Amino acid sequence: MNQITDGTIIAALQQIAGQSFVFSDVDTLTHYGHDETEDYSFPPGVVVKPGTASEVSAIMRLANEHHLPVVPIGGRTGLSGGALSIHGGIGLSMERFNKIIHIDEQNLQVTVEPGVITQTLRERVASTGLFYPVDPSSQGSCFIGGNVAENSGGARAVKYGVTKDYVLNLEVALPNGEIIWTGANTLKNATGYNLTQLMVGSEGTLGIITKIVLKLLPAHTHNILMLVPFYKAEEACEAVSAIFRAGIVPSALEFMERDAIDWAVQYVDGLSVAVKHGIEAHLLIEVDGNHPDVLFSEAEKIMAVVENFEIDEVLFADTEDQKNALWKMRRSIAEAVKSNSVYKEEDTVVPRYELPKLLRGIKEIGTKYGFRSVCYGHAGDGNLHVNIIKGDMSDERWKTEVPKGIREIFSLTVALKGTLSGEHGIGYVQKNYMDIAFSAPHLAVMRGIKKVFDPNNILNPGKIFPDQH
Amino acid sequence: MNQITDGTIIAALQQIAGQSFVFSDVDTLTHYGHDETEDYSFPPGVVVKPGTASEVSAIMRLANEHHLPVVPIGGRTGLSGGALSIHGGIGLSMERFNKIIHIDEQNLQVTVEPGVITQTLRERVASTGLFYPVDPSSQGSCFIGGNVAENSGGARAVKYGVTKDYVLNLEVALPNGEIIWTGANTLKNATGYNLTQLMVGSEGTLGIITKIVLKLLPAHTHNILMLVPFYKAEEACEAVSAIFRAGIVPSALEFMERDAIDWAVQYVDGLSVAVKHGIEAHLLIEVDGNHPDVLFSEAEKIMAVVENFEIDEVLFADTEDQKNALWKMRRSIAEAVKSNSVYKEEDTVVPRYELPKLLRGIKEIGTKYGFRSVCYGHAGDGNLHVNIIKGDMSDERWKTEVPKGIREIFSLTVALKGTLSGEHGIGYVQKNYMDIAFSAPHLAVMRGIKKVFDPNNILNPGKIFPDQH
Repeated sequence: MNQITDGTIIAALQQIAGQSFVFSDVDTLTHYGHDETEDYSFPPGVVVKPGTASEVSAIMRLANEHHLPVVPIGGRTGLSGGALSIHGGIGLSMERFNKIIHIDEQNLQVTVEPGVITQTLRERVASTGLFYPVDPSSQGSCFIGGNVAENSGGARAVKYGVTKDYVLNLEVALPNGEIIWTGANTLKNATGYNLTQLMVGSEGTLGIITKIVLKLLPAHTHNILMLVPFYKAEEACEAVSAIFRAGIVPSALEFMERDAIDWAVQYVDGLSVAVKHGIEAHLLIEVDGNHPDVLFSEAEKIMAVVENFEIDEVLFADTEDQKNALWKMRRSIAEAVKSNSVYKEEDTVVPRYELPKLLRGIKEIGTKYGFRSVCYGHAGDGNLHVNIIKGDMSDERWKTEVPKGIREIFSLTVALKGTLSGEHGIGYVQKNYMDIAFSAPHLAVMRGIKKVFDPNNILNPGKIFPDQH
Repeated sequence: MNQITDGTIIAALQQIAGQSFVFSDVDTLTHYGHDETEDYSFPPGVVVKPGTASEVSAIMRLANEHHLPVVPIGGRTGLSGGALSIHGGIGLSMERFNKIIHIDEQNLQVTVEPGVITQTLRERVASTGLFYPVDPSSQGSCFIGGNVAENSGGARAVKYGVTKDYVLNLEVALPNGEIIWTGANTLKNATGYNLTQLMVGSEGTLGIITKIVLKLLPAHTHNILMLVPFYKAEEACEAVSAIFRAGIVPSALEFMERDAIDWAVQYVDGLSVAVKHGIEAHLLIEVDGNHPDVLFSEAEKIMAVVENFEIDEVLFADTEDQKNALWKMRRSIAEAVKSNSVYKEEDTVVPRYELPKLLRGIKEIGTKYGFRSVCYGHAGDGNLHVNIIKGDMSDERWKTEVPKGIREIFSLTVALKGTLSGEHGIGYVQKNYMDIAFSAPHLAVMRGIKKVFDPNNILNPGKIFPDQH
């Protein structure tokens, strides 16, 4: 449905963006039809690569007039299907919005286009002595615009917060073609409704982000990284909140079940982390700051906490190479799981003290419905990625039993005062679980907001909201 | 208009909240008809003091059916007239929502009702070794619910952020009587639109907040407080961003023009801060943390920065008493100004490096329109409170010239990439300046959102949005 079969639409898009930036060949459509979400493929009817906000605005007006779906496409690293053109239409690749416009060293801000790769941004900012903390595992290829659209987190969120905590102001092209700045370039703002924060995490359903102003921090100079092996996975989860209760705010606090590490070690060439027999899980813990003495004392306090549990020898990463290897292992888990089996990944999040209950519940639900799971994630935030592994499960059971199990897992997260997604978004794959987190009147308010921005439902249709029957 | 003259409404309210919590005597109506905004008085037609969310819900349904205005009333310390019943109707005092429901030491969260006084909350939280950083100057009498409604800031926002940065989840009664939780009790959330952040700063126009879940931090143990006198006010402003560029994030960085201090010293009994001849402004600077050595080195770095400017001798507060006296002086400025003259206060905010330009511009605009101003505020955030002093200006010129001057001041803040209000809100007194910060399509989106929540415009009507002619 809504495929672009009308030659006049293609011609109008060429008129707007230039002939060389409009594509309708199968290879290009296929390329832009998938992201990192399982093995889905939903190609757009046409791909456009606009270069300016006014081109985006013109495309929006055209699409709005003809009621054509528009799906903003970033680095295609998303895990909830936000960039999939499930109703065809115009695939709006933002890759030409790739400029870091201004690093403002006086005000500790950066103005950036949405198509800049997050790691590139972080490195450029770092070269001026400043720090953009948000580091999703996909930072080497994801776009900062996608981070804003999904409210991405990452390993450092535990100390520094998520993308939303850094977005000061956004330039946005609305579905009616109007271009607005959502806020101001200020740290404080009590002027009208917070459209900036409404836009963050709205998964491309309310407007197209064309410029981003982010807050920056002064860089720190030192960190300590340690890997703690636990004989019991639930005890690793318990240690997480105990570390905070000891007054420490680590800059990273990651949980990895044994399988996650084993698979990552197999997947990444040259990675050697020997995991002893009987170890069920690890915590990867980092503290950072400017004063080595302070960091040593924090590391000692952390040791005092984890020694209350059954642990094996703690590995301190002594060199930058060792630190990089440990982070590479952590960041490779998602791809390692992907290469290992058909799977489904859920992005559960709960208050951190509830993690042991969540982990236990997930395993019990797996037993009940006959699936295995591998869990890892940002335990300091209570954010656990649950990978449900197909392995040798029958296609039939995979299709009928697993969704029931996922429903129970989400019901458990909500009962624990958590929710469906911590940092991946709802997108396409989680939308039919939204009723677990939200009542009908609550969803009605969200639908009403969607309609204010996008009365013709052209922007990323079929995402976030549950199918209506 | 919309006064409550109908006995059946009063009876229905008594039925809902109980006879002893519905008031229509003149004294009570007058009492709830003003906040701290200049000398405005807009009494409601009836005052109700509900005790539970379901009572609030029933009141909303009643008001929605009869199209009666409902104005949520907190500690009545607001500075933009958010709690004024400018169209009469029901004044909904939230003072009975005064319970701290649960300090969750495991998850570093507190669940609190909106009528708890901010300082009470901060002290109770502190008694468990935790820290709620947001400290508006009115913390001794303002309600935490009002802080959420206005997205209040305060002196520690420069390091710790404003109210919005601590709100995880809100229980809200909507105008149609539905009660929802806006989010989850989690640090990360990428599940649907961020209604929590939409509610924060919405000034009682979208729903009535009945419960609040706030993030807490581990408490720190030490701080250093210093008062730096500058011979030139603009140099004090310049020093602000220079301190950040030196890699320091102070926990407070306050700017006070000479008059502000002089008036505060006169106003507060027993306060002695001798300000030397020729001093134009001061910075009050605090650093905090757990390691005295680190704080001393940060204080030294700050000294190295401020010594680049023309300053007089720096006062280090040696005792808790001295620290409290300096903070008392700072927090008394607003009341001191109020006692001194008829005035108007604007809550300008810009990126902090633009502060010297803003201050210079304000003085030039004052000269042009014939008014004097006293400026002070949270300079570390670029948030400058501009008090326009009537003094011996004629009533005629006060009425005709000052609004022109305010318009120019706001145009300047927006030109400097700032906005109208940093932490006081728009409310009643700034609403007709909104066109300076927002285009017509932008305001149309905000009005559309208002309509989704409140189709009959019963909640705090006549606030935020400019009058339509």
